[in-house]
Amino acid sequence: MHYPTAKDIEFAHKSISKGVHRTPILQSTAINQLAGCEIYFKCENFQKVGAFKMRGALFALQQLTEAEKANGVVTHSSGNHAQAVALAAKELGIKAYIVMPENSPKVKVEAVKNYGGEITFCTSNLEARESEMLKLKAATQAIFIPPYDHFNIVCGQATAAKELIEDCNDLDAILCPVGGGGLLAGTSLSNKYFHNALVYGCEPSGADDAYQSFKSGKLIPQENPKTIADGLRTSLGELNFSIIKKEVEDILCVSEEAIVDAMRLIWERMKIIVEPSAAVPLAAVLTNKPLFQNQKVGIILSGGNVDLVDYFED
Amino acid sequence: MHYPTAKDIEFAHKSISKGVHRTPILQSTAINQLAGCEIYFKCENFQKVGAFKMRGALFALQQLTEAEKANGVVTHSSGNHAQAVALAAKELGIKAYIVMPENSPKVKVEAVKNYGGEITFCTSNLEARESEMLKLKAATQAIFIPPYDHFNIVCGQATAAKELIEDCNDLDAILCPVGGGGLLAGTSLSNKYFHNALVYGCEPSGADDAYQSFKSGKLIPQENPKTIADGLRTSLGELNFSIIKKEVEDILCVSEEAIVDAMRLIWERMKIIVEPSAAVPLAAVLTNKPLFQNQKVGIILSGGNVDLVDYFED
Repeated sequence: MHYPTAKDIEFAHKSISKGVHRTPILQSTAINQLAGCEIYFKCENFQKVGAFKMRGALFALQQLTEAEKANGVVTHSSGNHAQAVALAAKELGIKAYIVMPENSPKVKVEAVKNYGGEITFCTSNLEARESEMLKLKAATQAIFIPPYDHFNIVCGQATAAKELIEDCNDLDAILCPVGGGGLLAGTSLSNKYFHNALVYGCEPSGADDAYQSFKSGKLIPQENPKTIADGLRTSLGELNFSIIKKEVEDILCVSEEAIVDAMRLIWERMKIIVEPSAAVPLAAVLTNKPLFQNQKVGIILSGGNVDLVDYFED
Repeated sequence: MHYPTAKDIEFAHKSISKGVHRTPILQSTAINQLAGCEIYFKCENFQKVGAFKMRGALFALQQLTEAEKANGVVTHSSGNHAQAVALAAKELGIKAYIVMPENSPKVKVEAVKNYGGEITFCTSNLEARESEMLKLKAATQAIFIPPYDHFNIVCGQATAAKELIEDCNDLDAILCPVGGGGLLAGTSLSNKYFHNALVYGCEPSGADDAYQSFKSGKLIPQENPKTIADGLRTSLGELNFSIIKKEVEDILCVSEEAIVDAMRLIWERMKIIVEPSAAVPLAAVLTNKPLFQNQKVGIILSGGNVDLVDYFED
C-alpha cells in the first residue's frame, strides 16, 4: 500500500494551518505525581469542532479538484467526523451532505446544522448508514469523505503528533487512542519521520479489535463493542492497520473503570473537558505505570465532545 | 485607609511568581459571536488549587516574619481560600490550621488534607467558624489569614489583572466577580496603575450586597444570600469597598438562569471547567450586550472547583 511520506505530512500541515488551531500542550503536577512520569497533553479537545477530526477532514476536502468540489461531499457519522466535514465544507464553500443515525445526540445534530450541513437521518446501523450515503452520493455526485481509512485523512491526523513533537522534542513515548486507526496511523508516521519515541495505541478492553489484530497480525473486525468510549467502537481500517502493525510499539487495553477514573482525573485536576475516548491513553499509563516510569510521555487528548445535558438539567 | 500602590502590586507579583502559574488567556469564536464583542478569558481555573485565591494567600504568607511563621497560620473557609492557605503554607514550610464547616464538600476537605492542612470541623455558620478560629488562634498563637479584606490579600489578587493587562494591552473593559471584593479591589487597582479600561464587578442578583453598597455609598452586609455561585455569598469587606467605590465603573447583577447558561456555554464551547462564580462576568456581558458592543473585554475566570460527583456517579 501507498503510505504518506514525511513530505505528504508536511504538506498537509502547511495546507491546514490557517484552518485549524495549533492546540496548546498542558501539564498537571498532580497527575504527574500519580503517574510517576512527566505527561504532556496535546489538547485536541480545544480543536475546532472539539476534536482532532477537523485536521483530516479539512485536508481531505482541500485536496478535491474544483470539479469535485462543485458537487459537494457526503459522509455518514454520528460523531466528531460529521461536525468536522460540515465545518470544513463550510470554510471551503462546499456543500456537505451528512447521514446521521436518527438517535444521534441532539447536541451533535445541532452542531452539524449550525455548520450548514444538510442532514439525512437513517436507522441506527452501519448498513442503513452506508446505503443512505450511497443513495445520496448517486443522487448528488458528491464525493464520499470516509472517517479514517483514507490517505489524506491519515495525513491530516498526523499533524497533531507533528505539533506535539515540535513542541516537546524529547518524548520517550507517545500515546493516542485507537478506533478506526486514522489518528494512531498518522501519529506513528509523524513519530517515524520527525522523532523516535515509542508509539502506543490505547483501546478499551470492550472494543479491542486493534489489540486482537495487532497480536494476530491479521485484521479482525470489531463486533459488538461495549465501551463508554463512543469514538472507539469502530473497526480498524485496512490502510491504517498496515501502517500500525509496522510502526507501533504496542496496543494497550484498559478497563471501563480505568477510563472513567482517568476522565474524572483530567476534569478535576486539569479543569478541562475531555470525552471518554480521549481519557483512554491516560488510563493506559496509569494501568501500566512501570512501563512509563520517569519517562516523558506525550498524550493526544483526542476530543472534548460530551453531552452535558445530565449535568446541567438535573 | 491605606491602599496598595503600584509598587506594592509589582512587589507582590514578583514575590509570588515562582509559586503560582502564569495562567493562559483563552478565546472562543463562538462566544465572541454570541456576545458581539471580543472576550479574553484569563484562566484562573487553571491556577494552583483551581482558583485565583492562591495568589493572595501565598503573598500574605510570604509577608510574615520568621517569628510569625514559626507558630503557623489559621483561617476558616469552606472553599478555595482554605485550599489556598493550606497549599501556600505547605510550600513555605508553615503549619496551617483550617476551620471548615462540617458540611464542607468532601472533595474540598480531601484537598486541604492532601496539602497537609490540619482541619478542625465546626457547625456551619459564621459565628461557629469565627469562634472556633479564635480558639485555635489563642491555643496556637497562629496568625489569622483572612480570606479577602486584607492589604496583602488584595495585593496578591491584583496580580491576575496585572497579567491580563500585560498580555492584552488594549482592553476596553475588565470584568470579574465580586463576593468579599478582594479580587475586584485588586483588579481595579491594577487597572488604575497599569491600564485605563472600565472595570465592572459582577454579582448574582441573589447576593447583591456589592451592588446595594455601591449604589447607596455605604457598606450593606449580605443577608440570606441565594445563589448557586457559592464563592459570592460573602459580604463585601471594608477595605475592599473603599477601593471599589472609587475605582470601579459599575456593579452588574445577573440572574441565576444567566449564570447557569454562561457556565454551560464555557464548558461546552471552550471545553474548560469553571465554577458558577467564574461564569458570572460572562453572564453579565450577555445580559448587557449593548454596553460591550464591539469592545475588547477581559474577563477573569476566577476558579474551576465544582463537585463532579453527580456527573461521574450517576
